[in-house]
Amino acid sequence: MGRADFTYDFPHDRLITVDDLNPLDIQILFDRAEHWLAINQSADKKHDALKGLTQINLFFEPSTRTLGSFELAGKRLGADVVNFSAANSSTKKGETLADTARTLAAMHPDLIVVRHNASGAADFIHRETGIATINAGDGMHSHPTQGLLDIFALSQRIGDIGGKRVLIVGDILHSRVARSDVGMLNLLGAEIRLCAPPTLLPTDVDRWGAEIFHDLDDALDGCDAVITLRLQKERMSGALIPSSREYFHFWGVTGRRLEFANPDCVVMHPGPMNRNVEIESTLADDTDRSLILDQVEAGVAIRMAVLEQLGQRARKNARPGQ
Amino acid sequence: MGRADFTYDFPHDRLITVDDLNPLDIQILFDRAEHWLAINQSADKKHDALKGLTQINLFFEPSTRTLGSFELAGKRLGADVVNFSAANSSTKKGETLADTARTLAAMHPDLIVVRHNASGAADFIHRETGIATINAGDGMHSHPTQGLLDIFALSQRIGDIGGKRVLIVGDILHSRVARSDVGMLNLLGAEIRLCAPPTLLPTDVDRWGAEIFHDLDDALDGCDAVITLRLQKERMSGALIPSSREYFHFWGVTGRRLEFANPDCVVMHPGPMNRNVEIESTLADDTDRSLILDQVEAGVAIRMAVLEQLGQRARKNARPGQ
Amino acid sequence: MGRADFTYDFPHDRLITVDDLNPLDIQILFDRAEHWLAINQSADKKHDALKGLTQINLFFEPSTRTLGSFELAGKRLGADVVNFSAANSSTKKGETLADTARTLAAMHPDLIVVRHNASGAADFIHRETGIATINAGDGMHSHPTQGLLDIFALSQRIGDIGGKRVLIVGDILHSRVARSDVGMLNLLGAEIRLCAPPTLLPTDVDRWGAEIFHDLDDALDGCDAVITLRLQKERMSGALIPSSREYFHFWGVTGRRLEFANPDCVVMHPGPMNRNVEIESTLADDTDRSLILDQVEAGVAIRMAVLEQLGQRARKNARPGQ
Repeated sequence: MGRADFTYDFPHDRLITVDDLNPLDIQILFDRAEHWLAINQSADKKHDALKGLTQINLFFEPSTRTLGSFELAGKRLGADVVNFSAANSSTKKGETLADTARTLAAMHPDLIVVRHNASGAADFIHRETGIATINAGDGMHSHPTQGLLDIFALSQRIGDIGGKRVLIVGDILHSRVARSDVGMLNLLGAEIRLCAPPTLLPTDVDRWGAEIFHDLDDALDGCDAVITLRLQKERMSGALIPSSREYFHFWGVTGRRLEFANPDCVVMHPGPMNRNVEIESTLADDTDRSLILDQVEAGVAIRMAVLEQLGQRARKNARPGQ
Repeated sequence: MGRADFTYDFPHDRLITVDDLNPLDIQILFDRAEHWLAINQSADKKHDALKGLTQINLFFEPSTRTLGSFELAGKRLGADVVNFSAANSSTKKGETLADTARTLAAMHPDLIVVRHNASGAADFIHRETGIATINAGDGMHSHPTQGLLDIFALSQRIGDIGGKRVLIVGDILHSRVARSDVGMLNLLGAEIRLCAPPTLLPTDVDRWGAEIFHDLDDALDGCDAVITLRLQKERMSGALIPSSREYFHFWGVTGRRLEFANPDCVVMHPGPMNRNVEIESTLADDTDRSLILDQVEAGVAIRMAVLEQLGQRARKNARPGQ
Repeated sequence: MGRADFTYDFPHDRLITVDDLNPLDIQILFDRAEHWLAINQSADKKHDALKGLTQINLFFEPSTRTLGSFELAGKRLGADVVNFSAANSSTKKGETLADTARTLAAMHPDLIVVRHNASGAADFIHRETGIATINAGDGMHSHPTQGLLDIFALSQRIGDIGGKRVLIVGDILHSRVARSDVGMLNLLGAEIRLCAPPTLLPTDVDRWGAEIFHDLDDALDGCDAVITLRLQKERMSGALIPSSREYFHFWGVTGRRLEFANPDCVVMHPGPMNRNVEIESTLADDTDRSLILDQVEAGVAIRMAVLEQLGQRARKNARPGQ
């Protein structure tokens, strides 16, 4: 049991964005994630926190990795997990999102994990159904378990996040990861820096509570961590970016460049990465510096923690079994 | 335990069409579905009626919803559930249905749930393999769990079906749902009415034991329930239907039209629905009148009841465990 | 418990090719497969040999049948099984196989089952991750569980393999099945014959420890078993084979042709078969002669045996549970 468990009930019935969380919520989730992190390294990974509950993964965008991570998390906690993919779904037959949501709700899942290309889709599903919904990415809006896992993985390595200087570099404009990481870092009192080509910065970035840089070497000065972002293939040539080679030259994080940062500065990437585009290949593989695989490992643990908290609450509010 | 359990053994080793069932079979299934309906609303949905048994879902046609409903049902009952989709299947490599069936049978599933675009496919698979087979829709022939769930949901709302006046309206020609509903309604002694454009009526409809109408207002007179049918998108413009707008004008069920029916007449749709084509959008959302979500909820419960009965029988006939 | 269990610990932490096995390893796997074969015929197929372990099926090539067989095997043994298909995978987004492998490994599966079109892929994944990896087919190289199940099914029917004369006929050039069967037969001391059109023989076939034939009737002389191979549709017309009809004339195994073999000679095919191309349809259905369905049945049992041995070893080497 984590240390916060006896003093604080997780007060949320959904996870749509990290902005809904307070530091105590995060503390509970990190405590439980630390517990599951250890369990996941053992050969006794099957538990019954969610036994008797049903988890539906509703993915309108394909994402083998995120889906697999949530599926593993739910199964290890003993839930019955069923995937509904959009490929063959009724959506294709012209059904509205509201009707899809209500239809799934009538099957009485206790947890819905949803990925959708429209911002607000997860929140909409929660409001339509009242079922504990986890946003697994909605458009460019939010990807809260990614934000949680990134900062959890970081805190496992560098300790308390408060006061640390963290740089996010890359395609911030299109990134729900960046938005969720920034939300987490603000909550925990980090000093946030953003660095991107001007074409890849959102227009409202001055309200993000971060300092903006256009030169990577300047941005790295004194950093404790650098979070690189995935550059979508389709953006590598064209209006926004001249070429992946030029992108790497200006915005790629390398071992040499890290010399501008703090000596023990670590580097992260949400994956899948383009080696020698967003990050130097050798740096990505340097486990003293790179947290990339820690992030994946943290992902299953954080998702178990989130599913557990929301599942326990759903169980408490449900009718008693017969 | 349902009240019929001690006096009557479910005598079937397959469910191909509702026409194989007698009223006592239906009573057992409805009793058990009522049991599972309550269980599914609780947070203790995991049971072991099918523990140790294997359920294979063999879907040659995509159907996220029906597949998900069967998958949920099997998992909640403790079966090991494996989906075989046709997308990558050996059928594509030129294998015959008989060979596919025998191959699956050699893996010793206890239950096979099959959807196929050819009428008779489920029956064929049962005869080839001897394994308890549930027809999840075979061409235009039959969809027995849909028939069961429709009439179960209806009876949960309006009580005894015998003597009730039930209208089915829409694309009856192409609908295995209509055939299965009519079978159920005949078995339980309802007064059946059918209403459709002449182009969407089957040629043998005079032998269905139903009264045929071509005017919806006339058909609705004194009805206790109206079952609307899905109109496939590809039929909305072309030879059979002038347009979806004209279809709604003549055959769409609306709140105003329901005034011709009994005051407490309810309306149903197997989903996914085209709002304001087969049914008025506001009527679909009026939970006093619309059983659409009750049908989805009943679907999981009915499938659990069917899987349970066939699974128990399969278990009884199998070799003892070691 | 099989008889070898108490005297010999399965020494492997992966199954990449049958060439890594010795006769004692095979004895253990066959003993355990015989155990699971009986269990699979019962209605109590759920066991907990792999409870608490996670099995990831990573299929870069579609194969409903092999995937389903591994999925069933893992679930019946109590593992949490998650499928990662390549269709939507990060590989499509440009990720290297090494990164995919390390990413999956960070989710802490205990067993990885992998199918890939590149020879050596499974071995590569094992070396990158250290996780117990089962090769479910890598290019034209190897398909060890197919080799094991073929020879297990054969030994269940004809007893000891040593000294038996076994013919493999068909597209040997492109067949990982042929390579794995030959490996098994060599290990167990069978007399191996190969028969194929010259265009479908590999160039190194003289080093396979087999006698080569170009006339099927000659090749069949005195055989105890014939293993026919699947002819890929795309090879049926073109440079390598004149037509499927001519192929059947020269290389198809028929009841009449089997008269050249031993009186109780049996015939096998890995499936899915092209009836009257590789094998005469009536012969395939003659269960006195044909082991085709026995092979499928043996497949689940052998995969359970392999998963069990590798899983037990993985459990022993893992951190203790908490």
